[in-house]
This record gives sequence, C-alpha cells and structure tokens, in this order.
Amino acid sequence: MKITVIEPLGVEKSLLETLARKTAPDAEFVCYDSRTEDTAALIERGKDSDIIILANQPVTEAVLAGWQKVKLLAVAFTGVDHIPLAACRERKITVCNCAGYATAAVADLVFGMLISRYRNLEACENAVRTGGTKAGLIGFELEGKTFGIVGAGAIGCRVARIAQAFGCTVYAWSRTQKKIEGVTWTDLDTLLSACDIVSLHVPLTEETRGLINAEKL
Amino acid sequence: MKITVIEPLGVEKSLLETLARKTAPDAEFVCYDSRTEDTAALIERGKDSDIIILANQPVTEAVLAGWQKVKLLAVAFTGVDHIPLAACRERKITVCNCAGYATAAVADLVFGMLISRYRNLEACENAVRTGGTKAGLIGFELEGKTFGIVGAGAIGCRVARIAQAFGCTVYAWSRTQKKIEGVTWTDLDTLLSACDIVSLHVPLTEETRGLINAEKL
Repeated sequence: MKITVIEPLGVEKSLLETLARKTAPDAEFVCYDSRTEDTAALIERGKDSDIIILANQPVTEAVLAGWQKVKLLAVAFTGVDHIPLAACRERKITVCNCAGYATAAVADLVFGMLISRYRNLEACENAVRTGGTKAGLIGFELEGKTFGIVGAGAIGCRVARIAQAFGCTVYAWSRTQKKIEGVTWTDLDTLLSACDIVSLHVPLTEETRGLINAEKL
Repeated sequence: MKITVIEPLGVEKSLLETLARKTAPDAEFVCYDSRTEDTAALIERGKDSDIIILANQPVTEAVLAGWQKVKLLAVAFTGVDHIPLAACRERKITVCNCAGYATAAVADLVFGMLISRYRNLEACENAVRTGGTKAGLIGFELEGKTFGIVGAGAIGCRVARIAQAFGCTVYAWSRTQKKIEGVTWTDLDTLLSACDIVSLHVPLTEETRGLINAEKL
C-alpha cells in the first residue's frame, strides 16, 4: 500500500512519518513539501497511491481521473468545497475531513478582525507610536449592535454565542433552523437589512455561490 | 454661578451649550477647546468657577488650591486616579464621575488587541496584500487557555464572561471577592503563574502602584 501526503500540511514531516509507521507500518509513505496546481504534476504525485492526504489543495476531476488506484482522500481541513465529491462517489472513493478542528480559531478571528476594524487598531497603534492622537480614530462598541449569522453550523453557532457575550442582538439565517437561546431566526434579506454586522459561515457550494453579491449589499 | 469645561471632552461645543442652557439657564458657561498642563494657566481657567467639568486632565493639589470657589468637580471619565481626592474631601469639594460609560468599549478592546496579537493580524494583512504567505504567522486560539482577571469591577467581570464564551478557563484576583459562575478565585501570584493571558482592570492608586513589576513578570 502507498500513502501520499500531496502537499505540506503545516505539520513536521518527522511527526507525520512517526504516525504513518504506527498506523500502517508496512505502507510506503511519501510526503511532498511543496505545493503544485499543475494537473500533470499532481497526477504524477498521486498516480500509484491508495491513500492521498491533502489540506486545501483543489482537486479537479481531471486530477482525480489520473489517480487510478486511490481509495481514500483524507482531507486535513474542515471544508471539502475543493474536492469533486460527485466524481469521488461514482468511483467509490471515500472522502474524510477534519470537522471542527478550526471552529474556535475561526470564531476568534471573526472577533479579532471585527474589533480591529471597528476600533481602527492598526491606525491607533501607528498614532500612538508616532506621538499622534486618537483624532478621527474613535470607533464603535459591540454592545447593542445587531449581529447577523449566515449559516449556523458549528462555527456560526459559536460566533453567535460569543456575539451575545459582547452584548449584541443576534439574528441568524441557515438552511437548517436550530434552537439557540436568544437568537432570532429570519430570512436572509431581513437579516441583511437589520444587521450592523454580518458574519458568513457557509461552505462554497453551487447552492451558496453568489449568496452575497453587489445587489444584496 | 459659573461652570467651566476646562478641556475638550470630545463632545461638540454647541451640544454642551444646549445642555448647559437647559440644566442651568442662569449660569455663565465657558468651554475651553484646548488642553494645558500648565499650573498657572489651569488656575486662571478655573479660578472663579463654581463647577469645573473635565475628563482625564490631571489636577494637582497646587491647581486645586488655586480654584478657590469650586464646589463640584464633574469628571467625564470613569477613573478618578488623576484627581487629588483627599484634598477635595478636606475642602468639601464634591467629585462625581461617569462610572460605566466605557465598560463595553474597554472589554471589546481587550479582546480586539489580544486576538490581534495572538493571530498576528497586522503582519497577516501585510502578507496577504503583498502576495506573502502565512509562514511564521500562525498563532494561537483562545479555547482552553487560562485567562486571569486582575480586578473584578464592572469591566473585569465583563471581560471574564466574554473570555468564558471564547472557551477560556478564567481565574480572578480582586480586593473584593465576587461570585462569578465558573471563575476560580485565587491570589495574585498563583494567577500570574497559572495564566496564559492576564488582563488588568484596577485603577491606579497608591495601593495598586507597582502591582505588576519586573519581578512579578
């Protein structure tokens, strides 16, 4: 059996090799430490592998067609927008992902970037380091703001709870309605017109492409 | 009666004048639109005023001694670290402040600056705008971190609740112990050695000066 890590995963190679030896001691294990988007090069890397491990490397149907032996695509990423799922199903290739590994990190980033923007953090830091003042840099506080969540998966729900802790009034719109205490469910247009802040937490699929466009904004 | 706004408050002068006319129609109302730290100039500004309004302008005992007629110092600020309270008490000058006006804004800023630093937001923004990568810029997530609150007033308590929403384990140390669900109370040394993140929310007084110093760190 051959296992190929087709792109760097941000994990040390020696650690990956130790794990591979423990999990599949008899398998041939190959790790690429560079990325390529070239179809022929990607096919070459994976063509005789049974298991291919990747992160957010896009896999086209043409690349998949060249991976004749593959039985498992292990995606070290939550989203699988970049994998041709229908073609995998047809060829009976199992696709597994790492749901939830970045839920906390993404929610943190939402509020880090939001407050950074709301309070002009970068401009304030420059001002304070160059003897400037806060003139023109006073921002907004989150308390009392209306905060809209588009997509209420694990990340969307976590963002909703944190927004409530900051004192925001939270609205949500999602394909599947869930019960989250204190959150008002609504349609997308109402959410967009009612909310001061809108946070998007949906995968990119044919269904969601163009969900937010110039007209909606 | 004379009311003097001794420094700019960040509020439009016309609005202040409207408020003054409503509240004390017969009073003489003077508004300074510049700041000075000069003792003689400050005394001159306030010497015949009954009420002096200020924000975070430091008032020394020498300045206070020159404000012979003053009966009320209205501080448009939460903290009164910059006012000589003992001297005011002696001269029966009432001091009032604006407790709580910035509780939400300060708590927002704690998390904005924390996540900004934890996730290298500024460096990431530069990288993304100049075709760079996240190499060397991957940060930490808040979930599971130990978060210490020093001082559990309105701001400290709010920061504690938000830290819990981010999935942190919260420790607190304060002069007066309060009941906050899920927060562990401890002494300052234990807090400093146990916590990944420490957030300070105490006023600067003779009691708190030097609370955190090189040795503690």
